[in-house]
Amino acid sequence: MKILKKIGVLTSGGDAPGMNAAIRAVVRSCAYHKVDCVGVYRGLQGLIEGDFKELDARSVKNIINRGGTFLKSARSKEFRTAAGRKKAFNNLQSENIDALVVIGGDGTFAGASRFAEEFNFPIVGIPGTIDNDIHGTDYTIGYDTALNTVVEAIDKIRDTANSHNRLFLVEVMGRDAGDIALNAGIGAGAEEILIPEQNMGRERLLESLSRSKKSGKTSSIVVISEGDKSGKNIFELAQYIEENLTEYEVRVTVLGHIQRGGSPSCYDRVLASRLGVGAIDAILRGETNVMIGIVHNKVVSVPFSETITGNVEMDKELIRVADIISI
Amino acid sequence: MKILKKIGVLTSGGDAPGMNAAIRAVVRSCAYHKVDCVGVYRGLQGLIEGDFKELDARSVKNIINRGGTFLKSARSKEFRTAAGRKKAFNNLQSENIDALVVIGGDGTFAGASRFAEEFNFPIVGIPGTIDNDIHGTDYTIGYDTALNTVVEAIDKIRDTANSHNRLFLVEVMGRDAGDIALNAGIGAGAEEILIPEQNMGRERLLESLSRSKKSGKTSSIVVISEGDKSGKNIFELAQYIEENLTEYEVRVTVLGHIQRGGSPSCYDRVLASRLGVGAIDAILRGETNVMIGIVHNKVVSVPFSETITGNVEMDKELIRVADIISI
Amino acid sequence: MKILKKIGVLTSGGDAPGMNAAIRAVVRSCAYHKVDCVGVYRGLQGLIEGDFKELDARSVKNIINRGGTFLKSARSKEFRTAAGRKKAFNNLQSENIDALVVIGGDGTFAGASRFAEEFNFPIVGIPGTIDNDIHGTDYTIGYDTALNTVVEAIDKIRDTANSHNRLFLVEVMGRDAGDIALNAGIGAGAEEILIPEQNMGRERLLESLSRSKKSGKTSSIVVISEGDKSGKNIFELAQYIEENLTEYEVRVTVLGHIQRGGSPSCYDRVLASRLGVGAIDAILRGETNVMIGIVHNKVVSVPFSETITGNVEMDKELIRVADIISI
Amino acid sequence: MKILKKIGVLTSGGDAPGMNAAIRAVVRSCAYHKVDCVGVYRGLQGLIEGDFKELDARSVKNIINRGGTFLKSARSKEFRTAAGRKKAFNNLQSENIDALVVIGGDGTFAGASRFAEEFNFPIVGIPGTIDNDIHGTDYTIGYDTALNTVVEAIDKIRDTANSHNRLFLVEVMGRDAGDIALNAGIGAGAEEILIPEQNMGRERLLESLSRSKKSGKTSSIVVISEGDKSGKNIFELAQYIEENLTEYEVRVTVLGHIQRGGSPSCYDRVLASRLGVGAIDAILRGETNVMIGIVHNKVVSVPFSETITGNVEMDKELIRVADIISI
Repeated sequence: MKILKKIGVLTSGGDAPGMNAAIRAVVRSCAYHKVDCVGVYRGLQGLIEGDFKELDARSVKNIINRGGTFLKSARSKEFRTAAGRKKAFNNLQSENIDALVVIGGDGTFAGASRFAEEFNFPIVGIPGTIDNDIHGTDYTIGYDTALNTVVEAIDKIRDTANSHNRLFLVEVMGRDAGDIALNAGIGAGAEEILIPEQNMGRERLLESLSRSKKSGKTSSIVVISEGDKSGKNIFELAQYIEENLTEYEVRVTVLGHIQRGGSPSCYDRVLASRLGVGAIDAILRGETNVMIGIVHNKVVSVPFSETITGNVEMDKELIRVADIISI
Repeated sequence: MKILKKIGVLTSGGDAPGMNAAIRAVVRSCAYHKVDCVGVYRGLQGLIEGDFKELDARSVKNIINRGGTFLKSARSKEFRTAAGRKKAFNNLQSENIDALVVIGGDGTFAGASRFAEEFNFPIVGIPGTIDNDIHGTDYTIGYDTALNTVVEAIDKIRDTANSHNRLFLVEVMGRDAGDIALNAGIGAGAEEILIPEQNMGRERLLESLSRSKKSGKTSSIVVISEGDKSGKNIFELAQYIEENLTEYEVRVTVLGHIQRGGSPSCYDRVLASRLGVGAIDAILRGETNVMIGIVHNKVVSVPFSETITGNVEMDKELIRVADIISI
Repeated sequence: MKILKKIGVLTSGGDAPGMNAAIRAVVRSCAYHKVDCVGVYRGLQGLIEGDFKELDARSVKNIINRGGTFLKSARSKEFRTAAGRKKAFNNLQSENIDALVVIGGDGTFAGASRFAEEFNFPIVGIPGTIDNDIHGTDYTIGYDTALNTVVEAIDKIRDTANSHNRLFLVEVMGRDAGDIALNAGIGAGAEEILIPEQNMGRERLLESLSRSKKSGKTSSIVVISEGDKSGKNIFELAQYIEENLTEYEVRVTVLGHIQRGGSPSCYDRVLASRLGVGAIDAILRGETNVMIGIVHNKVVSVPFSETITGNVEMDKELIRVADIISI
Repeated sequence: MKILKKIGVLTSGGDAPGMNAAIRAVVRSCAYHKVDCVGVYRGLQGLIEGDFKELDARSVKNIINRGGTFLKSARSKEFRTAAGRKKAFNNLQSENIDALVVIGGDGTFAGASRFAEEFNFPIVGIPGTIDNDIHGTDYTIGYDTALNTVVEAIDKIRDTANSHNRLFLVEVMGRDAGDIALNAGIGAGAEEILIPEQNMGRERLLESLSRSKKSGKTSSIVVISEGDKSGKNIFELAQYIEENLTEYEVRVTVLGHIQRGGSPSCYDRVLASRLGVGAIDAILRGETNVMIGIVHNKVVSVPFSETITGNVEMDKELIRVADIISI
């Protein structure tokens, strides 16, 4: 087996809290195994442009607590072309990089997988995205932090909702998956939670709100996943409710990009550290074309091909819990 | 002089963090002076409906750290009518309430002032609003907390801005006054700050952003007061920039109602405690139709007539500081 | 099977963030199943004193985000006596309470188990303790929040450590188990982590610190579980290091009771909600003398007899990760 | 008048949140005025050792939100010697530094003042310390943040105090001045506040606690300034109370170094920005041997000789407020 001397690391796709902790673990794990480490800036695009920098154990000090990714991230159309990928491969060759760790979501893994096969180049992935929508791992880096950010934001909104007997519609991230909405909705004590997997519809929402108003609730929070289609959009839905449920003043808040940032939670820092160490372990064992994930609290390797996001079935127990505790 | 035996307290207008701390100080100050205290629920509307509850020193335990107002707040059209105010007065009479503390903004003070004169009823005000737009006091309760909330939210957004070399437009509260935008913009390290008092205009904004892009900035935050009219709205402005400054991806975040909530800062808790104590002192001294404010760190009384929000001149020193430190 | 009409709920032992969320889920789940619910104040002692209060769905509004337990907790020596337990049973009888949910740690479960057997009275437990030291559940309510609290506190200490090139010893909770120290130590980027399961000894600590000082580290955080015996106590250990490693100024911080409080994390709120719902489900299914726990993200029932804290084996993978990433 | 071409900046003494924001403002203000700027690492000691680094506008990006000081701080015995100061002067000469901004407390200003006079070297100070104990400025950088940190920590402790009907003694910083204890004590809703300026004595504390226990309080927080001498120390005081007031379990928490760290509050960031800009303005106006402070919200210059900490009189209004609202 070829002896590995230099490993590259990059972050790609949307940034997520804990990516820096994962980079740190990769870099220090390289130092521990006496392998050189190179940071690739701006993701796959940086690979094409040869935007490299040597990283040693001290290069990654004081970053475990910082949101975002100091290696930066970027979208790369060029990497989807054969010419782009060839450039990337040449850069890796001339830099003597023997293997690559890519931190990102399923789009990143798809690109990495193709590249790994095309050039027979060892690549290991680490799941970093707030969306928790990757198969083969129970959690992705950044998801736990995002949940806490959403819950803290809604706690603030609740202060105002309670003070004014208002109904608030709060939109959270999640284009295809309702994980954030469902978990943060439970955590924030939401009255109703609208997720793409269910598509409750605005009529049933109205009935439910009307019922709970009668049962004595004076204010309410409805958490809505951005992928939910119960209204044309959240503003139109608010207007519909206000017209049909005149006891309530309705207000809308779109949480937006604050959900991506912030200092990572302890869970995300530990998860990122474990997966970073696990990725280097996997590379040194000769694995490639796999993602390092966490299943039942054990670090595991999963072929890239099995990680592609498909329909994740909604957790029925959680939906039942949400129904019961919002009574 | 008539001896006061019972004082009412209410919160009115938009809620603000620290209102609970102010109520607590009013209630405990009454207990200290052996005067009864009555909480009026839902502001001026509750006055009309006789929504009263006796409060003693223990009624307000464990609320100093909570956002919102446990007495709730509401708008009251009825209070603008003579009939409504007469009802309110009758309720105060039959409840034997001798004086009133009202916590709110300038709209609340205007209504209270009229009522105080109409019925020769002692009323003292406490400035509670995140907008800091009341004459006669250096600070209003809730403003300091709102600034911290905005700055913490933008810190999170900055993580993503840095990771992606993006430009973020962030809308903050302030329909007429740019205080929140200017201070939070400086605190958050914003590149540009758009406030209604200046109306920079979108062309000058573009020039400035273009200049700083050239000077090596890779990401930027622009903080925009909701009252600023540099674009038709923030989304239109974002589109304009993206079309004319192609190096940047532009993203928009409207912070919205999270700015009103949250556990109050130490400053707001102390300020609320001082003004609450000061309000009861003023009532017991026989003052009426005044707001208790803070000027140069001293508690002062200001006639309601002088508190009405007019044009607050923008602080030129702060604007200069903002310009210099965003170089 | 006897039809259940009224269920009691209490919290016992040290308080933990998320206990309120668990109580809320129990109360609302009762409302959902149309069973009456009674809150028992001050834990097992309140059972003896008959300190009961009816709780309906609205009684538990706006508590999901609050630390501590609104039912309060207390130690009860009397409950260890046959006479005390008899009184408790009589109170349950005269109040027509058919079953009990107890939220607490292994001490609570031991007492509850004995009581359940003695009087053939249905009891179901929910694990609530920041220590995560209960068999049969992957997580206890409050543990995730405590980790975040510790990590945020150490982030603050790190600011000072970095500014002054200092060595900080930080003591965290964990008399018998090093879970908090190990996870929060990894999360906080600690240089060394001392846990009772390892007992590194002060000489090896000194060697390791000396080595890393030479390798270029300018400041360091050592996280120490209160149960660790590497020094007589943390202050003595600090003095020993300062005497033998003169390049460092050493400072000590004992985090103490801030670790028990705070608004629960999203994870703890969701966990508490699931276990609360699960506990009522179990009671309605006729189960007794069991704890409702979470294993591999599924809600499970575990006999009380299997939950008693024994020696939890330390996670070797985590210890290895801690070693590698602190290089 | 000599034209200034290069200005140095350093931080000295204990670190405080907002120091980085002040450095940033100094550096960017230099860039704005087209003056070179040099960072001096490790305070006055770095001056002696010539530990310098050029700083431009981009060098200080993304630090406004970070606690501590990236220029680091250190104590310097050598600077107290004539030989040490001579070395420092020579380094400034050979580096062509024309003036110096020093950020720190009164100890730093005393040293700087001596140096400025000895070598006729222009020095301007900025008050950076969490203790708020400097004459000539209403606020020092870091004080507002420290208050928020203390209040948030006590909010957590209160969760546990409430849950267990306990009495907590919480020690906060302040060797000579009780500002932090008094303000944070009010903000945290403390039952009693012990400050060095008052020395209540343990007997009177006992009486007061006993009274409030009788009046129905079930838990209490006592905030104690580290300079208070009501007991030999906080642990001895706790024991004394427990022996004499048997209804209470007493617990002790020493907040320690977490009070120095953390992301600065908006107020501290804005204050630091204004004083940093003001310091360069003062230097360019030819001022020296002055501190730039804030008085009644205006930036002012105060001779170093007037800033030396003397006895600050305790604010009697605040003490009265504390008494009233803890009833």
